[in-house]
Amino acid sequence: MALVNDNFLKLPGNYLFSDIAKKVNAFKVVHPEAKLIRLGIGDVTRPLAPAVINALHSAVDEMASEETFRGYGPEQGYRFLIDTIIKNDFEPRGVKLDPDEVFVSDGAKSDTGNIGDILRHDNRVAVTDPVYPVYVDSNVMGVRAGDLQIDGRWSNIVYIPCTAENNFTPELPEKRVDMIYLCYPNNPTGTVLNKKQLKKWVDYALENEVLILFDAAYEAFIRDEDVPHSIYEIKGAKQCAIEFRSFSKTAGFTGLRCGYTVVPKELMGRTPDGQKVSLNALWNRRQCTKFNGTAYIIQKAAEAVYSPEGKAQVKATIDYYMENAALIREGLEATGLQIFGGTNAPYIWLKTPKDVTSWKFFDRLLYECHVVGTPGVGFGPSGEGYFRLTAFGSRENTQEAIERIKNWKI
Amino acid sequence: MALVNDNFLKLPGNYLFSDIAKKVNAFKVVHPEAKLIRLGIGDVTRPLAPAVINALHSAVDEMASEETFRGYGPEQGYRFLIDTIIKNDFEPRGVKLDPDEVFVSDGAKSDTGNIGDILRHDNRVAVTDPVYPVYVDSNVMGVRAGDLQIDGRWSNIVYIPCTAENNFTPELPEKRVDMIYLCYPNNPTGTVLNKKQLKKWVDYALENEVLILFDAAYEAFIRDEDVPHSIYEIKGAKQCAIEFRSFSKTAGFTGLRCGYTVVPKELMGRTPDGQKVSLNALWNRRQCTKFNGTAYIIQKAAEAVYSPEGKAQVKATIDYYMENAALIREGLEATGLQIFGGTNAPYIWLKTPKDVTSWKFFDRLLYECHVVGTPGVGFGPSGEGYFRLTAFGSRENTQEAIERIKNWKI
Repeated sequence: MALVNDNFLKLPGNYLFSDIAKKVNAFKVVHPEAKLIRLGIGDVTRPLAPAVINALHSAVDEMASEETFRGYGPEQGYRFLIDTIIKNDFEPRGVKLDPDEVFVSDGAKSDTGNIGDILRHDNRVAVTDPVYPVYVDSNVMGVRAGDLQIDGRWSNIVYIPCTAENNFTPELPEKRVDMIYLCYPNNPTGTVLNKKQLKKWVDYALENEVLILFDAAYEAFIRDEDVPHSIYEIKGAKQCAIEFRSFSKTAGFTGLRCGYTVVPKELMGRTPDGQKVSLNALWNRRQCTKFNGTAYIIQKAAEAVYSPEGKAQVKATIDYYMENAALIREGLEATGLQIFGGTNAPYIWLKTPKDVTSWKFFDRLLYECHVVGTPGVGFGPSGEGYFRLTAFGSRENTQEAIERIKNWKI
Repeated sequence: MALVNDNFLKLPGNYLFSDIAKKVNAFKVVHPEAKLIRLGIGDVTRPLAPAVINALHSAVDEMASEETFRGYGPEQGYRFLIDTIIKNDFEPRGVKLDPDEVFVSDGAKSDTGNIGDILRHDNRVAVTDPVYPVYVDSNVMGVRAGDLQIDGRWSNIVYIPCTAENNFTPELPEKRVDMIYLCYPNNPTGTVLNKKQLKKWVDYALENEVLILFDAAYEAFIRDEDVPHSIYEIKGAKQCAIEFRSFSKTAGFTGLRCGYTVVPKELMGRTPDGQKVSLNALWNRRQCTKFNGTAYIIQKAAEAVYSPEGKAQVKATIDYYMENAALIREGLEATGLQIFGGTNAPYIWLKTPKDVTSWKFFDRLLYECHVVGTPGVGFGPSGEGYFRLTAFGSRENTQEAIERIKNWKI
């Protein structure tokens, strides 16, 4: 009988969001009349921009006619989209990229999950803590995590705590690591690194030959001038970092599926005998072998995000979410809660009062305010005592949720 | 520095289709005036069915309004599509499936490439030869292939020759294997297995605890009653087989990207200490961790393939391609060439005359007839001396190509 990858069996059987769903369902059985407001899962709610809708309709029409029909596209993505990405997302920030350094895909979850394919199983991995679970779980599957310990940490993963105590600024690891995931603006804490803080990481990575896996899925929410949108704004980053981008939160593509990954040609890994190897060539080979490109119509939709109308419409939606974020921040601060994030990111991270655990806070918020959020500990041990709310709800629901919390005797 | 998965470095640097492209470009430099006809790459050319186009437009409109907008969908696919698949592709053939046994994806290339994630690196893999390169290359990346030998075979892969000598019917392997890829109707040979022949494989797999990875991407082209469309038509197959399906060739989705994979809940793998593990649970976990679902609008397009209009339109297109296949078969047979496939598949596999090598035949066909095909040896050592033509061209080009070959002094 075929042997299974038994590392999968090390993963806990329960998922954060399915645990939440179970608790919410139990609540609804007891309180069928309650009007629940969900500020938990980080999914967008606003419809697609009209420019994107128009581009989709035209691209669909192209697929209806023999002359303009498109079959297999390049696994790496169409040049029309890659060129538009480079021109809009990188050139204005002083970053030059060649078209073959950009790989269009069906989203950052696939790419951050699959990137391990090109890396050896014995690299030592570091993550900030709390952290987006995909980074950890995909490394458990990829044999790099070791064993799950009683404290909720994996034995071979280096955890870098990001808490109020260090102002959510990750400190350089003391142990030698080979690869580190950095997600900024951060999910789940909503905090950012400014240029100087990110430069410290790039310098460290260059000096110690560490690979940075930089997830910039939330860059569109950055408001502060001093916060880099791309890690390549930092000198030398092309020699140490892969960057993941997504249209999901930028343009409401969570249900359309499009993102891209930048693997600079200067970026090298090593073979066990010390030979340098281009990670760009390996990722290209991985994608050509195990992926068949992103749908043409979806790539046309992504291109439309960068049209003048698209840019204005997408910006209006992001402004809408960021106004929600400001409402949540201000409303919760007025109750005396300690609040983080939400100024350069759609996530608000709050310290639970009176050292209540994340799950206890979840239960009370659900049963007493009928508001669903996400327990911080679900993102890692250093998330204990924290709680995440998202700005992706409707204005009305967001306002009502905040009113309920304001009137709540925590 | 991060260590790379150095198995990637074992892969030959050149790809079959890029080698072909280079040769075609060289030809075009010398003969800019020639009208080239391409019957090489297996990509469709007919536009999408009107029912699919209509479904896409409606789904795009849903994404434009707050009330009907869809964000993240289930990683496994929407129930509306899964239920439609089960009802149309399996129930009429007497195969019962639960909805959680079907996983919708962005295509069979992703799924056949990624399936190795849930299997240990030390399983012994068998492939039929010639073979779709993804099966082999993804196992090279996944450490199961060993080393490339001078005869073009990988040291740890068991090759099962399928040639005219054995009527393209793969014989059971003599060596113990743990997993075997079977693609029927076959790419590249266009040949099929009837019920009895496939039953032999299922019985062997059950008796020896072998996992069959059954690629049924071309099932829509089957015409003979006696050829199973799904491996699950064979009793016991749910305990030994995963089946991959695709809308690419069935409904012209090569540029839309949608397929699905069936992992029955009865199907088990083993841990190294002999414990049985559900492969369904592992694949579900893999997809939930490294994939974020297929676009809603694409799933609505796939659903429309099964509507009464969609079925009729898709059937008309497949008939069109199969008429091309018949023209190629008849035309080439008239020249005295030995022809295989093309009656239950869109591929025609021909024996090169006078023991000419596959590449020599390619060159002569290109330079003397201005027709591009695919050298059989590109699909594996047992493909040497064979050549693949596809039925996916336009009627006019197909007819003209055949006329040229008929008038050719081979």
